[in-house]
Amino acid sequence: MTGVIGVERYEDGNAVKIAWDNGRTARFHAIWLRDNALDDQTRSPANGQRLITLQDVPQDTRIADVRLAGGGIDVSFHPEGRTMHFPAGWLLDNAYDRLPATGSFRISPDKDVWDGSLDAAEVTDDFGEVSRQPQRLRKWLAHVRRFGFARLCGGPVENGALLDVVKLFGFVRETNYGKWFEVRTEINPSNLAYTGLGLQAHTDNPYRDPTPTLQILYCLENSAEGGDSLVIDGFCAAQRLYQEDPGGCMLLANYCARFEYRGTGDVHLFSRQPMLELSLNGELTAVRFNNRSTAPITDVPYDDMPAYYAAYRRLGEIIDDPAMAVKFKAEPGDCFIVDNTRVLHGRTGYASTGGSRWLQGCYADMDGLLSTLSVLEQQTIDDAA
Amino acid sequence: MTGVIGVERYEDGNAVKIAWDNGRTARFHAIWLRDNALDDQTRSPANGQRLITLQDVPQDTRIADVRLAGGGIDVSFHPEGRTMHFPAGWLLDNAYDRLPATGSFRISPDKDVWDGSLDAAEVTDDFGEVSRQPQRLRKWLAHVRRFGFARLCGGPVENGALLDVVKLFGFVRETNYGKWFEVRTEINPSNLAYTGLGLQAHTDNPYRDPTPTLQILYCLENSAEGGDSLVIDGFCAAQRLYQEDPGGCMLLANYCARFEYRGTGDVHLFSRQPMLELSLNGELTAVRFNNRSTAPITDVPYDDMPAYYAAYRRLGEIIDDPAMAVKFKAEPGDCFIVDNTRVLHGRTGYASTGGSRWLQGCYADMDGLLSTLSVLEQQTIDDAA
Repeated sequence: MTGVIGVERYEDGNAVKIAWDNGRTARFHAIWLRDNALDDQTRSPANGQRLITLQDVPQDTRIADVRLAGGGIDVSFHPEGRTMHFPAGWLLDNAYDRLPATGSFRISPDKDVWDGSLDAAEVTDDFGEVSRQPQRLRKWLAHVRRFGFARLCGGPVENGALLDVVKLFGFVRETNYGKWFEVRTEINPSNLAYTGLGLQAHTDNPYRDPTPTLQILYCLENSAEGGDSLVIDGFCAAQRLYQEDPGGCMLLANYCARFEYRGTGDVHLFSRQPMLELSLNGELTAVRFNNRSTAPITDVPYDDMPAYYAAYRRLGEIIDDPAMAVKFKAEPGDCFIVDNTRVLHGRTGYASTGGSRWLQGCYADMDGLLSTLSVLEQQTIDDAA
Repeated sequence: MTGVIGVERYEDGNAVKIAWDNGRTARFHAIWLRDNALDDQTRSPANGQRLITLQDVPQDTRIADVRLAGGGIDVSFHPEGRTMHFPAGWLLDNAYDRLPATGSFRISPDKDVWDGSLDAAEVTDDFGEVSRQPQRLRKWLAHVRRFGFARLCGGPVENGALLDVVKLFGFVRETNYGKWFEVRTEINPSNLAYTGLGLQAHTDNPYRDPTPTLQILYCLENSAEGGDSLVIDGFCAAQRLYQEDPGGCMLLANYCARFEYRGTGDVHLFSRQPMLELSLNGELTAVRFNNRSTAPITDVPYDDMPAYYAAYRRLGEIIDDPAMAVKFKAEPGDCFIVDNTRVLHGRTGYASTGGSRWLQGCYADMDGLLSTLSVLEQQTIDDAA
């Protein structure tokens, strides 16, 4: 249990300087502390939502006085004349007085990048156990957060069973393809996925904005020759490209690509988004790669187009490198989930005759999954306490 | 009908130079033309999807020969030795040989920014007419694309009627709040929206990623004193901030804010996203503003925090400026839709006694709406032809 051992008014009361017993020190501005105060007139005790707007906080807010109290600090604010308590741990968790994260290409520390050497068994669990045991569900969802990929085996071989997987953590994202869609050979396929063709590893629906952030593929039949599933960590591929050719990698990040789907008369989806998306501080946030639905790319200036295309080609070569892919043959009742903003999925071709292959797919979103995971993790902490 | 009147091999066959009869000229690279070829071995005639990957295109692709043909051009590619046709109009639509869009803060030309002087009647139509007449629906959806806001009046006063509005163009985004949620005074509100308090104009669910891109609020009862609805164009507010204080505006764009919702035990939503989101070429793509769910902002370095907070305060003042708001009192059977990545909505406070106020709300996504609009617009062109 960390405590504050030193505090002083700073910059004429515009800030405070705090020292914790773990050796950390940090400065906090008066206006920031006041805006984030934890008292029940600032935050609703019932639901935690802020009850005030920033305009309710006087512009000339300063710290009149500050003192150690209950392991944290009591701060008296001018001109309101109110004193508020800030716990030591909360201050430590929310300290912003540090150097900003740097680097023009970074991958979040809570994600592990992987290549074909990833043992799929590590991220695979049993459908029934995960459905029954919250702690098994917590571990399985944590795989999705860390690896962007996880599998379940031994589920029911039933039409629509994939919806039970979604119910474990969130909600289906319904689209023009329906609540879920059938992935099997069709006579007049509206999408190449509904043929026996092999599919280069890709992310789904880059032509949709917002793109579905999760996809589940659930196997009901798979007696056909071939038709193995494969997944590739797009973050690992992007990292390899950056290491080989940083300039080319940044072209893919700095110019929007275009994606389009016009498969049937009643749908026309179009989006303009980069193949590699970086946040403002250089953190890789999304990969979009789909040869079938990439539209003519027209946001790249003429002089940059050759280098852009060279990087685009190289990224495709990395994605097609067998060393990158985790391959497996899904059995009926097996399913896998991918973070569709990170992990590419594909399949080897299969014969449309002699045996059958039938998967069902659906989309969902990461916010619900992370919320469920966060609640389960909080329960684990509470149970341990 | 535009035609190509001149074409020449360029840069030793790495590109072509084209002149149209409307005076435009543009260069196209051989690799770009080959990758985007329209023949039925490159693109599926059935569904328009690309059948090849970039790796299927020889790296040393060059233009062996090019000539005028059928108003467009025929291009012979080395080393494949194949000749493909590119129509004049397609080349014009996809020409990328121009200066890249510049400016560090721009608003898309297909969006009209507006303030309180917007006449809500301009974007309001009748529920029944829009439901029955595709051309009325097309006009109404076009308002959503251009203004980020539109209204329907005279709809049924029925529980769940808002789902019929979504069915006009797309699909509900189900969340932990359900397929839809009730906005009325509750005894133990899990959200301040479910009280009689006034709500500062805000975008919904910034703590969700992906954030729902559309919201519909449908009125079933509104006999209470007050409780007027108001909407504000967040793009107009951001533009005003940029004009007053470009540096401050860019701080809100360049550092992530944090948003959190922990209203009930089984939900914990958290996101890290900027209040103002700019694309890589400086186009404003999203506004996120919600005083109730803004968590402690810790991604801003200490030295930038005072200026960040000053800009945050100023943005709130602009949003609270009555000159920015379009106000209206929703009657039972009225509803409105907002682009939740752009337009803020709020309400004046109302008395919880003597009269009642009951709205139902739901979320949906822009991709489905734009797809429906695009198909309706194509039908209009076809009908006119």
